[in-house]
Amino acid sequence: MDAIDFLLQLSLILFTGKILGILLRRIGLPQVLGYILAGIFLGPAIWEMIFDIPAGSIVPITAMDNPYLKAFAEVGVIFVMFTAGLETNLKDIRSAGMQSFLIALLGVLIPLGAGIGIGALFLPESGFFTWLFIGVIMTATSVGITVEVLRELGKLQTRVGTIILSAAIIDDVLGIIVLAIALSLSGANSSTSAVLSAINPNNEAWISIIWILAFFVFAVGVGFGISKLFKYIEKKTPHTRRIPILSIAVCFAYAYIAEKVFGVADITGAFIAGVVLSTRHDSAEYTDRKVTINSYTVFAPIFFASIGIKITFAGLSLDVLWFALAFVAVAIATKIIGCGGMAKAMGFKWKDSARVGVGMIARGEVALIVMEKGIAGGLIGAQYRAIVVMLVLVSSLLAPILLKILYRNDKTEHPLPTKEQLDGVQYEQTN
Amino acid sequence: MDAIDFLLQLSLILFTGKILGILLRRIGLPQVLGYILAGIFLGPAIWEMIFDIPAGSIVPITAMDNPYLKAFAEVGVIFVMFTAGLETNLKDIRSAGMQSFLIALLGVLIPLGAGIGIGALFLPESGFFTWLFIGVIMTATSVGITVEVLRELGKLQTRVGTIILSAAIIDDVLGIIVLAIALSLSGANSSTSAVLSAINPNNEAWISIIWILAFFVFAVGVGFGISKLFKYIEKKTPHTRRIPILSIAVCFAYAYIAEKVFGVADITGAFIAGVVLSTRHDSAEYTDRKVTINSYTVFAPIFFASIGIKITFAGLSLDVLWFALAFVAVAIATKIIGCGGMAKAMGFKWKDSARVGVGMIARGEVALIVMEKGIAGGLIGAQYRAIVVMLVLVSSLLAPILLKILYRNDKTEHPLPTKEQLDGVQYEQTN
Repeated sequence: MDAIDFLLQLSLILFTGKILGILLRRIGLPQVLGYILAGIFLGPAIWEMIFDIPAGSIVPITAMDNPYLKAFAEVGVIFVMFTAGLETNLKDIRSAGMQSFLIALLGVLIPLGAGIGIGALFLPESGFFTWLFIGVIMTATSVGITVEVLRELGKLQTRVGTIILSAAIIDDVLGIIVLAIALSLSGANSSTSAVLSAINPNNEAWISIIWILAFFVFAVGVGFGISKLFKYIEKKTPHTRRIPILSIAVCFAYAYIAEKVFGVADITGAFIAGVVLSTRHDSAEYTDRKVTINSYTVFAPIFFASIGIKITFAGLSLDVLWFALAFVAVAIATKIIGCGGMAKAMGFKWKDSARVGVGMIARGEVALIVMEKGIAGGLIGAQYRAIVVMLVLVSSLLAPILLKILYRNDKTEHPLPTKEQLDGVQYEQTN
Repeated sequence: MDAIDFLLQLSLILFTGKILGILLRRIGLPQVLGYILAGIFLGPAIWEMIFDIPAGSIVPITAMDNPYLKAFAEVGVIFVMFTAGLETNLKDIRSAGMQSFLIALLGVLIPLGAGIGIGALFLPESGFFTWLFIGVIMTATSVGITVEVLRELGKLQTRVGTIILSAAIIDDVLGIIVLAIALSLSGANSSTSAVLSAINPNNEAWISIIWILAFFVFAVGVGFGISKLFKYIEKKTPHTRRIPILSIAVCFAYAYIAEKVFGVADITGAFIAGVVLSTRHDSAEYTDRKVTINSYTVFAPIFFASIGIKITFAGLSLDVLWFALAFVAVAIATKIIGCGGMAKAMGFKWKDSARVGVGMIARGEVALIVMEKGIAGGLIGAQYRAIVVMLVLVSSLLAPILLKILYRNDKTEHPLPTKEQLDGVQYEQTN
């Protein structure tokens, strides 16, 4: 593989992905799918399956074993998680209150439990950690499409809109914690961390958990010092390039230390770096803008295309298809039940509860990233790639359709639930 | 090489390079040198030379054969040249007038000729194309530092300031043309272009030149269509992400086609893509901002660090040292003679002519990139790496010092030269 051929591949991915993304956007689908589709078209999947053309002939991108593409995809994941972290403002979460937290919590626990359940049902001999991982993939909501639909309907500033927004951010954090625990307990990450395998040779659960806690303590403690430093730099030389560049350096260092020292996934490290940097210095938004630009112009497209390139339709059996259908149906139903049910329990009306539930069903980037981690760690098979892409596709299609139906004939701004309605549940007052 | 180790390397390069860059800035040196120095510290050069520590032990980055770093450095060069192109507005050049053009032209021809001369003198057996390349490296001015000094002195808006600015942009374009011709004639690029070696098996000069012309015709022709399309998109959906993403795709495609089809360097393709996109649609500045952010946060740092990583002090003989001194002295003197002399010939006062000449001596990114091309093409040896870095260092140090001396006791805005003073030379009137 020549470096110059790599430029052609980049160009093809960006061009095809963007054009497809624009078209998908028209029918209300997320642009991310454009890059995945571009990967499918440019990679071997379709060519091999339909036309029986072997890799290495006319197919533009034959495989992801190309080290250049791999490097870009790898950094792409880190950037996507870092920006997700930067956009997670802990202050907002605190002021979002107990309601959003409880809705997010049930929206994580119920899909997680149901995921373990269908794992045990369909793949009984795969073992607990595979089932657990199927659950973990189901946890993280991608709120982008929902936000757009709510904004379009003029409902983003309502109580339901705020609840969905906060709960989606909170379930990212919860999902990251669940992922860290799952990867650590399964031992999938101790192979990359010499430190973890030294102190925990028998892969005992309690040591792993303490070590995860140690990571979070380290990340927050060191992050506190870094943020103080950044605050100082920012005050002396506002809006220079140094803060974004040093922030990216911190992100990479966190990702490295998380994986190599603590046996926590690098994406968790990047996410936590984002959260730590976002809360404590004023230029987080400025940094976020820079990193986001970096991310969306080159890195994220290549990561999402890499999913498409790696997708294979070989070995698709009827069993896999049944599992896929169950997986998608359960992932969607459990978010509605978990989040919508919790909302109802807290005194929301039926319709608003349904809106909250439906607002949380969409899955996106994080589900795809968690899936790749699971495949890389040997916890789930490569056939999950197509299944999780299907979940992203179906849930992204359903969320706006269902939301629009639920908001039909709703011309009034919905009043906040009264104190009485919310009586049954403890919650913090939000202003 | 693990992908995760690569994250540590990225982090170290960004962190060390930025800290060094901030310190260098304090003493008036360009920040680019910070990343080169970071590469020297993090790479094998010093460790091997001073401490005799072999690569692969405690040295963080052992070599640039690491494919991940290589991919980033490669894309870094493309981005640096693309942004240079985007910032080259042909309209500005046209309105800059004949004066700037003639100053730039002599500022290219005299270093080029002198470079060939010292090449023939010091390296008689290396052959004409090596001598030519030594000249080509000397052509491109880096105006960043000069602009900062002039701005600080309040002289940027003067006639001298405008002339320097325009001439520096024009000599980039001239330098790129000279580079394209040099690489093509030497046959260094026909190995990468199957098309060129097919139509020009005997590497005949006139075919190469026609083929270069064909590239420029193609680039401008296709670019015209693309720009029309972008203008249309921009009008329909202003300031969305699609224009920057598609622009980057065009840049990569141009780089690929330039090298693979026309046997012109990929950096020439990227530069021309920037020029073509900058002149014909309104969002060039918007795109430039996005690409620049991409470039300075990750890619450019890694490219400049890669120069430091590849620098070797092994095999430094007295001969090489003499050559280095001659190279740096000639590179600086010829810009002063070429540009300053032309200014004097056009009627500028002695002092202003000297200011113009001194304002053009600084070399930077483009010289480094051209050098890497020459090394990769086998036209010059790896020992040039340290020599060209020395040129960047010395010329960047000298330019502000000399400029400040030449502007000492100059409290008045300098009047434009009168028609009579300029009588001897044809020039376009600029407003």
